[in-house]
Amino acid sequence: MTEELRDHDVPADAGASPGVAPVVLGRELSDAELARTLAATVSTGVLSTMAVDHPGTPFGSVGPFGLDGSARPVLCISELAEHTRNLRADPRSSLLVARPFTPDGDPLAGPRVTLLGRSELVPDDDVAEAREAHLAGNPHAAYYIDYGDFSLWRLEIEAIRFVGGYGRMSWVDVAGWRAAEPDPVAPIATGAIDHLNADHAEACLLMARHLGQRPDATSATVTAIDRYGLDLVATGPDGPGRVRLPFDEPLTEAAAVRPATVTLARRARQAASA
Amino acid sequence: MTEELRDHDVPADAGASPGVAPVVLGRELSDAELARTLAATVSTGVLSTMAVDHPGTPFGSVGPFGLDGSARPVLCISELAEHTRNLRADPRSSLLVARPFTPDGDPLAGPRVTLLGRSELVPDDDVAEAREAHLAGNPHAAYYIDYGDFSLWRLEIEAIRFVGGYGRMSWVDVAGWRAAEPDPVAPIATGAIDHLNADHAEACLLMARHLGQRPDATSATVTAIDRYGLDLVATGPDGPGRVRLPFDEPLTEAAAVRPATVTLARRARQAASA
Repeated sequence: MTEELRDHDVPADAGASPGVAPVVLGRELSDAELARTLAATVSTGVLSTMAVDHPGTPFGSVGPFGLDGSARPVLCISELAEHTRNLRADPRSSLLVARPFTPDGDPLAGPRVTLLGRSELVPDDDVAEAREAHLAGNPHAAYYIDYGDFSLWRLEIEAIRFVGGYGRMSWVDVAGWRAAEPDPVAPIATGAIDHLNADHAEACLLMARHLGQRPDATSATVTAIDRYGLDLVATGPDGPGRVRLPFDEPLTEAAAVRPATVTLARRARQAASA
Repeated sequence: MTEELRDHDVPADAGASPGVAPVVLGRELSDAELARTLAATVSTGVLSTMAVDHPGTPFGSVGPFGLDGSARPVLCISELAEHTRNLRADPRSSLLVARPFTPDGDPLAGPRVTLLGRSELVPDDDVAEAREAHLAGNPHAAYYIDYGDFSLWRLEIEAIRFVGGYGRMSWVDVAGWRAAEPDPVAPIATGAIDHLNADHAEACLLMARHLGQRPDATSATVTAIDRYGLDLVATGPDGPGRVRLPFDEPLTEAAAVRPATVTLARRARQAASA
């Protein structure tokens, strides 16, 4: 994997706040893990195919999908649709997976992944598994999956482009994508973050001060939680700065967030009173 | 425009309900108008470009946009991004515009449009207008539109594929797209529908019975409103059926929905008591 952290070309007068250098302790989710986590929570992508009626022009269309056991997207598409005609003429295609674009959120701030390769009709022997994989991602297909004009196709991935947000992007290798697990904490992360900030602000501040090398911090806000640890923004006299704290070991289920954060809080209190 | 209404290949045992033949009176939004209405309410599409690193393979990426005065999408893209490298090597591209894919909604039931053509750097003389058009659609770009690595590009549209939902699709001609207006009623349609169904169910039933050629109807629910009229589903002894009723003239603003529906209701009551 080629990790790329690039800087935008910011005008000199843009007035970015200086802030405090980040403190990053322990492992973080890889781009492969971030991409698999995204694809586990989003079940409609955009399929790009080659427009058979407009040679050389790529054609985007709505592509509900599920992932099969080899992390290949499985689509259920109709012979009535342009993308199916296109794929029958040229299998080269990609699937973009992104969070829903809401009017309020900045669409470029969130993660997205483009899976590039060749789409093929699912071979007969694999149809049962592919059908299950598609329906698991897209239950609406139950209404039409057995219609005569719909078939299951799968994307054989050859390259993967991940963008984590502004300035963070990489090519993820396909074996790494297959091997990566979606973060088991993702489904409850937002709730856990809200709970920590609402009910345990004092403990979070102690974590930043005594575990996160920010003894000057006067406030701390949790901004992310994943299987490997949590992110805080700790603010002190010199401004805000990121603090990343690891859990003792990677969590294997969402329910493990609570004891893992209790452990961090206890350790921070012990350090504070030592 | 080639209107296509195609039937899916439904298995004989699928048990679709027979229902009642639709009654469609008056004009309906054209596919060009539906597409422009969609593009007026959605400001992030998916850009498909030709992957310069993977020859012949189309590449989907997130594309916030605004429409300029000629209804061309204006994008603001960074030299750090793959799609910009791709467009510099091959301008052929498309932009898919669809409603956000929510977990609950069927992603294939809603409208979407693919604008195919060639993307080009906005010429200097047009940058001021294009900048305004992009920012009107995507205010988040205010943070980066003046960064040195971002430039404005516009898509010169050569072909347009519209899909209205299951089985409804057409190629919309480009002149028709340019000339079509977004439906002025769209921003308030959901609220108006809810209000009519909650507070004026009796009037809606009279409309179905006495204006919509469904004297047998025992209930009626408004399902859509646009500048040309409203849609009801009227249910009677033989099941549900669509009824489309026209307003006296096309509405030019959202505020005209109220008097137009009051007029329909009054006329239905007069017919009922005649």
